[in-house]
Amino acid sequence: MSANPLEKAARREAPLGVFDSGLGGLTVVHALREKCPGENIVYLGDTARVPYGTRSPETVVRYALGCSRVLLKRGVKAIVVACNTVSAVALDMLRIELDLPILGVIVPGARAAVEASQGAPIGVLATTGTISSNAYPRAVAALSTRAVVIGQAAPLLVSLAEEGWVDGQVPRLVAQRYLEPLVRKGARSVVLGCTHFPLLKKPIAEELAALTGENLPIVDSAYATADDVATFLTERNLACTRTERGTLDLLVTDVPKSFREVASRFLGETVDEVHQIDL
Amino acid sequence: MSANPLEKAARREAPLGVFDSGLGGLTVVHALREKCPGENIVYLGDTARVPYGTRSPETVVRYALGCSRVLLKRGVKAIVVACNTVSAVALDMLRIELDLPILGVIVPGARAAVEASQGAPIGVLATTGTISSNAYPRAVAALSTRAVVIGQAAPLLVSLAEEGWVDGQVPRLVAQRYLEPLVRKGARSVVLGCTHFPLLKKPIAEELAALTGENLPIVDSAYATADDVATFLTERNLACTRTERGTLDLLVTDVPKSFREVASRFLGETVDEVHQIDL
Repeated sequence: MSANPLEKAARREAPLGVFDSGLGGLTVVHALREKCPGENIVYLGDTARVPYGTRSPETVVRYALGCSRVLLKRGVKAIVVACNTVSAVALDMLRIELDLPILGVIVPGARAAVEASQGAPIGVLATTGTISSNAYPRAVAALSTRAVVIGQAAPLLVSLAEEGWVDGQVPRLVAQRYLEPLVRKGARSVVLGCTHFPLLKKPIAEELAALTGENLPIVDSAYATADDVATFLTERNLACTRTERGTLDLLVTDVPKSFREVASRFLGETVDEVHQIDL
Repeated sequence: MSANPLEKAARREAPLGVFDSGLGGLTVVHALREKCPGENIVYLGDTARVPYGTRSPETVVRYALGCSRVLLKRGVKAIVVACNTVSAVALDMLRIELDLPILGVIVPGARAAVEASQGAPIGVLATTGTISSNAYPRAVAALSTRAVVIGQAAPLLVSLAEEGWVDGQVPRLVAQRYLEPLVRKGARSVVLGCTHFPLLKKPIAEELAALTGENLPIVDSAYATADDVATFLTERNLACTRTERGTLDLLVTDVPKSFREVASRFLGETVDEVHQIDL
């Protein structure tokens, strides 16, 4: 992709595209707006077809290509796949099919986990699809010859986060059930390997402390991803020059009744407007 | 729809079509195979787009028409909508668009509830979509001038049933949380207003008994629906004459990893073969 200086300057000011199966990816947008506040962001949540985490890899790839093409039409300069399931099974295919930079959440999460765990076994909580894909073990193996990954599918945590049921005995018991095998197998850190899980960080941390008697590191891949995106944009000379706060366009394929409430919860700021599109 | 005697005889032996957003509708198939054992059944689970319960009515109608057309192409004599959400928001539209009998799960469930509650307030546990649609209050009002319906959206119960997490403290605590407001508002019976919920009948019954100190009726709409279908087929002279056990064809739009296990759990019999189709 060669470009003249004028085209390059225009490309820097183009928006970042971010997509997820639903609204969980807004935790990544939240982190991006802290880390790269000037960037305009177009977010697409495929809320009509959420969740992806229980679907076959073939279906996830088909859906991810559809989402990416919507963002391409909006003139984005790069796409952040703010979904662990898509990052786990469809990233290579997106890179083959599309002529722009594609960044996922797995590699940044794996890198942060390797740093935090210092060679000790890494526990990963994620959707069934992400765990089945072995994406975290592969990403960690590429970064460290020592680190071992112990995966645990935690589908109920997705439902609890979507419902906003993030406090009290039920989230703690569910977290306990998923953490117990990780701790038993020797995990010394826990990666929140699904963009929904940062909302449940408190009960997860409480149960992890109760099970181990220690404060083990919990890795939030949303922040690790935002760091990665910021570095990438700077290195490729793709960071915008804007100093005012960037815009945020929200696109969804279906508008659930409690959309505004759920989106604000994930995003950490009030949602004013949202556009529904067909895929 | 007039037909000559030969056509009528052929139509009697045609299969029944049954569809649901996912696999929960197999609880209705389970009941149908007990009640009408000779009928051949074609079941379609739209597993690539499950769940419907959190989607907008427009999206549910569009998906339901797609499912119905697949069954029509298989030559079914009638369609059983084995999904409360679709029955709640899309039944009228299906009847307008399609030229064959369409039976839902709401009216049979409401009728069984009116009989069981004998004029006392009826509690309904269902998806957010079903509760928002007011379908149960409307169906009950058409049957009884006395009965009052108290609805409670219970989305976490869907996730628990899908995960097979149907025993122990978590399902009981979740059931308690959803039953408590129903009991507080005076419900004297509980309708399982989602085809997933029969799998959780035990913890629901235990918590209902714990909250009230009584054994209040719990209405399983799967069985009420099978009764309704059997009556309908007999009255319309559409029941098959077969004496051997009918066949069961399973179609899905995506094959989740644990499909066989989950399907067997809902169906109550071993699943041998399943065909994946595109919608």
